[in-house]
Amino acid sequence: MEIDSNRTTLAKTLQNRRQRLAGLIDFPVMLWSGCRMGRNFPANRFPFRASSHFLYFGGLPLERAVIYLNFGKLELFIDDSPPETTLWHGEMPKREEIAEKIGADAAFPLSELSSRGEGVATIAVQDIMTRHQQAEILQRPLGLGNNLSGRDRDLAIAIASLRMYHDPDALAELRQAAAVTVEAHKAGMRATNITNFNIHSPLQKTQTEATIRGAMEGVIIAHNMTCAYNSIVTVHGEVLHNEQYHHSLQPGDLLLADVGAETEMGWAADVTRTWPIIGKFSPTQRDIYNIVLAAHDSCIAKIRPDVEYLDIHLLAASVICQGLVDLGIFRGEVSDLVEMDAHALFFPHGVGHLLGLDVHDMEDLGDLAGYEEGRVRSNRFGLCFLRLNRPLKSGMLVTIEPGFYQVPAILNDPEQRVKYRDIVNWERLAQFGDVRGIRIEDDVLVTEDGCEVLTGGLPTEAEAIEELVN
Amino acid sequence: MEIDSNRTTLAKTLQNRRQRLAGLIDFPVMLWSGCRMGRNFPANRFPFRASSHFLYFGGLPLERAVIYLNFGKLELFIDDSPPETTLWHGEMPKREEIAEKIGADAAFPLSELSSRGEGVATIAVQDIMTRHQQAEILQRPLGLGNNLSGRDRDLAIAIASLRMYHDPDALAELRQAAAVTVEAHKAGMRATNITNFNIHSPLQKTQTEATIRGAMEGVIIAHNMTCAYNSIVTVHGEVLHNEQYHHSLQPGDLLLADVGAETEMGWAADVTRTWPIIGKFSPTQRDIYNIVLAAHDSCIAKIRPDVEYLDIHLLAASVICQGLVDLGIFRGEVSDLVEMDAHALFFPHGVGHLLGLDVHDMEDLGDLAGYEEGRVRSNRFGLCFLRLNRPLKSGMLVTIEPGFYQVPAILNDPEQRVKYRDIVNWERLAQFGDVRGIRIEDDVLVTEDGCEVLTGGLPTEAEAIEELVN
Ligand SMILES: [Mn+2]
Ligand SMILES: [Mn+2]
Repeated sequence: MEIDSNRTTLAKTLQNRRQRLAGLIDFPVMLWSGCRMGRNFPANRFPFRASSHFLYFGGLPLERAVIYLNFGKLELFIDDSPPETTLWHGEMPKREEIAEKIGADAAFPLSELSSRGEGVATIAVQDIMTRHQQAEILQRPLGLGNNLSGRDRDLAIAIASLRMYHDPDALAELRQAAAVTVEAHKAGMRATNITNFNIHSPLQKTQTEATIRGAMEGVIIAHNMTCAYNSIVTVHGEVLHNEQYHHSLQPGDLLLADVGAETEMGWAADVTRTWPIIGKFSPTQRDIYNIVLAAHDSCIAKIRPDVEYLDIHLLAASVICQGLVDLGIFRGEVSDLVEMDAHALFFPHGVGHLLGLDVHDMEDLGDLAGYEEGRVRSNRFGLCFLRLNRPLKSGMLVTIEPGFYQVPAILNDPEQRVKYRDIVNWERLAQFGDVRGIRIEDDVLVTEDGCEVLTGGLPTEAEAIEELVN
Repeated sequence: MEIDSNRTTLAKTLQNRRQRLAGLIDFPVMLWSGCRMGRNFPANRFPFRASSHFLYFGGLPLERAVIYLNFGKLELFIDDSPPETTLWHGEMPKREEIAEKIGADAAFPLSELSSRGEGVATIAVQDIMTRHQQAEILQRPLGLGNNLSGRDRDLAIAIASLRMYHDPDALAELRQAAAVTVEAHKAGMRATNITNFNIHSPLQKTQTEATIRGAMEGVIIAHNMTCAYNSIVTVHGEVLHNEQYHHSLQPGDLLLADVGAETEMGWAADVTRTWPIIGKFSPTQRDIYNIVLAAHDSCIAKIRPDVEYLDIHLLAASVICQGLVDLGIFRGEVSDLVEMDAHALFFPHGVGHLLGLDVHDMEDLGDLAGYEEGRVRSNRFGLCFLRLNRPLKSGMLVTIEPGFYQVPAILNDPEQRVKYRDIVNWERLAQFGDVRGIRIEDDVLVTEDGCEVLTGGLPTEAEAIEELVN
């Protein structure tokens, strides 16, 4: 079936992306959207998340759909839902309507796909059911992550070079995700105030991490968005990927909330704030908070085209080391401390990453998107977790997320204690026991002449944070 | 490693369940918990949901764990997390601690599993990655749903006969899920009031279905629970499994919300209410609402041991037909109308289902749990969607969820219009155009001498609903 395109904005954006891809490769491509998985029985399924590569060129979160791209043309493969599902799911858009919306050049049922796999490049999706179909149609095994090869690798490099620089439609989505995320964090801060607590439920006698998570994710859901990743909302910020929410909130605690929204089309935000439960930082908490904030602000001040992201990371490390020297926690010269990876004792992750359709954008491609060709991850304790090592260019969206954590697994490691014996004043550090984890994270767009903080509507200053909690 | 059991309440409950299973079968069993799936890249995963059968006997939502049950003894197979994950995920409980908590008789790493598969029965989990492992360890293909055979089928029957009647620990969990669900619905009704709207977000100019969903799910998350299923929150209640939330709320609309919480241990609630956006039912909406409520109340009044659930379904059908006759929408004798499946024109689903660890409890076993041995699903339009056909017994938890829907796919079906030509007064029906979908659903426990509505804290009367919205 041939389609007389009614060229909508979405269709135009997608066609433009497809044209640009056609300028980079000379072979056909199939991208699968994926399918939903049963949660505890087949009819009770996890929410659907379409593959990001499919979304980038196909535009809509269609389940069990495939797009075939060749020389800038798109053929859509999808089955209409059987009539008996109308009772349960209502009238679903038909193949032709969908095809028109995304500016497809032709559209076919999935059964037409089987003869088309020869010489075609693809990217493996996350769900294994669909991955089996991909291998079957293409009649070959599929590489994953850092093990892509041949045309699949060429395709991944081409896609990464497009997805890395956001077009206006992508930016419009990313701005929406950022705006809702800002509101979610404000709601979380407000819900921490004991007078706003329990407005919804007489069942809770104590306020927990989950209470705040509910307030924050409730806002995201209310805007018909989803969480771009499993939220971290914890008084144990030192557990970097904490996914527990049961701890009660104690007056002296800091709460670290890393929560981000994702639009219906799949575009993400990624924001962290850290605030005091009682609405006032202790003097020790404020001291460390201001060091992390100084690192955050210094990094953002430096972001502009052609700056190396690795240098931004090292700048964060320097500012943190300088702050810890000023507080008497570190001894020595800042440049020596960074050289020795001393910063990683308290800041053991990278300063940020690419952000787009994925919260760690294109991480399914291994380091292919994050690392400039020819560069590989360092083995250094202070650099090995850095997810992005490229010169920044206009149109890139990155996170800036310095932090300070007292991670027992690091600080109690006998090897580390020997290595950093002369550098850390452990007695002085002991006075900062009420600081387990602090992170401040914003989403920063590289522009022609500098940068723009998409999540700048959310304050970072300690006093402004306190005011929101109170 | 042998374990000196510190017999906790959880361990005792689980041991009791295992002993009862041992009384029903004479072969060994392995149950897998399952694993998480990548959402858009491997590190960004969907939340973990352990297999319900694993949870019933193993008690804790452990990822990548297997329990081996034989003659009432449990051996736990799980790997300790590698030390390097402590940095990201904190200290995780060790195999021995977990084994003690669940009253295991022994515990081993997963590598010990491979030699143990002979003659072992199992139930396939939902995630395909783990399902491959199951087939590999047992060295045979696995049946699914209604296609279970041999020992797997015997095991499924034995498990169903236990899980069908809830023990005190299960009931305590189910009551918690019910209580939080009641609060979520109250929050949804309150959030519908225009003066409570937008308290969290200046970004929303209009109130949508998503606004209410956010208020409701926010409460569930705040209690550290998850949604037991994808919420239905819609002004298009006639789309039975609606998962869209983008419609704006208009003054004349009814909102149908089918939202239920699930505890951390996996126990579910399943509740539906329908309320008017403006806080007042129109006369036509109130008429139909009261018919659905009469069906709901009549069914619950009849629930006691030894009553056939099919008769409860037919009672709902009768009450709905009677109500529609009284309103002049139907013509004829109620018993004839039910015999002709006329009720299914407006009530095309079953009156309810089993509820427990799954919202449709044990639906992964096909109809094996829902249907008494020897009974099969009817082909009748008015009966084919009934998920439960057994005599009720004390300890069973069922939903009662009659409804009225104007489903275009049914009412505009030429075949139906011919079949029910003399029965429906279409002109009269047209006056009820502002009633697209109404459902009232509660969770009802069969007791020794009748029943108890676990979700009875949430009003059903039209006036009480109106008051909550206002
Ligand atoms: Mn981040
Ligand atoms: Mn139900």
